Amino acid sequence: MRLRHKPWAKEEMEKYPSIVIQNPQEHKNKWNNIFNNDQPLFVEVGTGKGQFLTGMGEQHPNINFIGIEKYDSVLISAMERVRDTEQPNVKFLNEDVENLLDFFEEGEIDRLFINFTDPWPKNRHAKRRLTHENFLSLYKHVLKPEGEIHFKTDNQGLFEYSLHSMSTYGMAFKDVSLDLHKSSVEGNVMTEYEEKFSKKGMRIYRLEAHFNNN
Amino acid sequence: MRLRHKPWAKEEMEKYPSIVIQNPQEHKNKWNNIFNNDQPLFVEVGTGKGQFLTGMGEQHPNINFIGIEKYDSVLISAMERVRDTEQPNVKFLNEDVENLLDFFEEGEIDRLFINFTDPWPKNRHAKRRLTHENFLSLYKHVLKPEGEIHFKTDNQGLFEYSLHSMSTYGMAFKDVSLDLHKSSVEGNVMTEYEEKFSKKGMRIYRLEAHFNNN
Ligand SMILES: C[S@@+](CC[C@H](N)C(=O)[O-])C[C@H]1O[C@@H](n2cnc3c(N)ncnc32)[C@H](O)[C@@H]1O
Ligand SMILES: C[S@@+](CC[C@H](N)C(=O)[O-])C[C@H]1O[C@@H](n2cnc3c(N)ncnc32)[C@H](O)[C@@H]1O
Repeated sequence: MRLRHKPWAKEEMEKYPSIVIQNPQEHKNKWNNIFNNDQPLFVEVGTGKGQFLTGMGEQHPNINFIGIEKYDSVLISAMERVRDTEQPNVKFLNEDVENLLDFFEEGEIDRLFINFTDPWPKNRHAKRRLTHENFLSLYKHVLKPEGEIHFKTDNQGLFEYSLHSMSTYGMAFKDVSLDLHKSSVEGNVMTEYEEKFSKKGMRIYRLEAHFNNN
Repeated sequence: MRLRHKPWAKEEMEKYPSIVIQNPQEHKNKWNNIFNNDQPLFVEVGTGKGQFLTGMGEQHPNINFIGIEKYDSVLISAMERVRDTEQPNVKFLNEDVENLLDFFEEGEIDRLFINFTDPWPKNRHAKRRLTHENFLSLYKHVLKPEGEIHFKTDNQGLFEYSLHSMSTYGMAFKDVSLDLHKSSVEGNVMTEYEEKFSKKGMRIYRLEAHFNNN
């Protein structure tokens, strides 16, 4: 994600606290109140500019979506999208996924999405990958026992690594596609990165996984 | 594997009982006697014409190899190779992998190879795939607890399926390559099918897996 410094972004988002939720730790275990309903909760980590989540929100009005993105200069675009479309079921947190347990209670999330997350190709940066076992342990905590992780990427090395890290963590893959756009895949919502890379003819890898031992 | 009927194949192999072992159930739990040493035992299922196993045997003289192939018309080529090269550490069984437990004792095998096995793309044939859970349960039984399965294929659908079936069976992937011949891979020995498909520019998929819960 190319970052342009946008000093006004944080302030602008604070004007829309019903879209970019401030002090999310205060809503732990009661996100239903924020959405004002009892719909399932799907969370995307590393949301970027929000194209995927707003597309999903439109396709699935009976599900609540929260996107987590640490850079305000990126998240501002996601906020603007939801402000303009007035989608009541899509919210964002301007936070680091590292702090996930501060925001969600054990088993509060029904499904988690990881899309085109930074590959951090150097081994010494492996801990920053959002599919590193340290992150998996956070996801396991906040996901319902039968909850799924859906993961897409164009990055071959990251996908190979994630097959290793997830299976070693005891996860089972329900569905794997090694060339998503050549498979018949219904209801696929493209992310910004997915659109860019698949246009260039690159393969998109995808998997659905759940924690085995629950 | 294109099958030509070779009525003489079975008889010809019987002339070399030190290469194609007859009545393998009699050697269960004492394969060391057949090889006349205490080297580790690596087994390939669906060996075909034996190019991989004879290549491995040459590269690793300190390991014993057994290849299992059910069609005599194919295995005859493997037998002829070993007859001509006089490799003492490579043997074959003209048997169906289904009967694996008749030939090997619990924990008798150190490593298992599955190379370019028939994909059986129709769902109703899934049970014939050598990575179906029924076969995995046989492999788990005969492999040492820390034993690994090494699996290669050109078939995208079979690889996707196997990631599912193996992880669901509790297996962990140590190493995954989604484009083997573009990775730096030392000591890779090509199989007949691998040579054919990689020449056509097709991707070769590979993984190393072990049973988690041992
Ligand atoms: C490569 S972009 C992909 C964006 C979008 N998901 C897509 O598919 O187009 C990855 C995004 O994840 C965000 N990200 C990475 N690590 C994060 C973390 N620990 N917490 C929050 N966001 C993170 C980055 O800031 C970046 O915006
Ligand atoms: C597609 S060929 C590949 C041969 C070789 N491994 C290669 O990579 O070139 C698969 C082989 O597996 C054998 N095979 C498949 N199922 C088997 C089974 N249940 N028991 C023994 N052999 C089997 C077939 O007869 C065939 O020769």
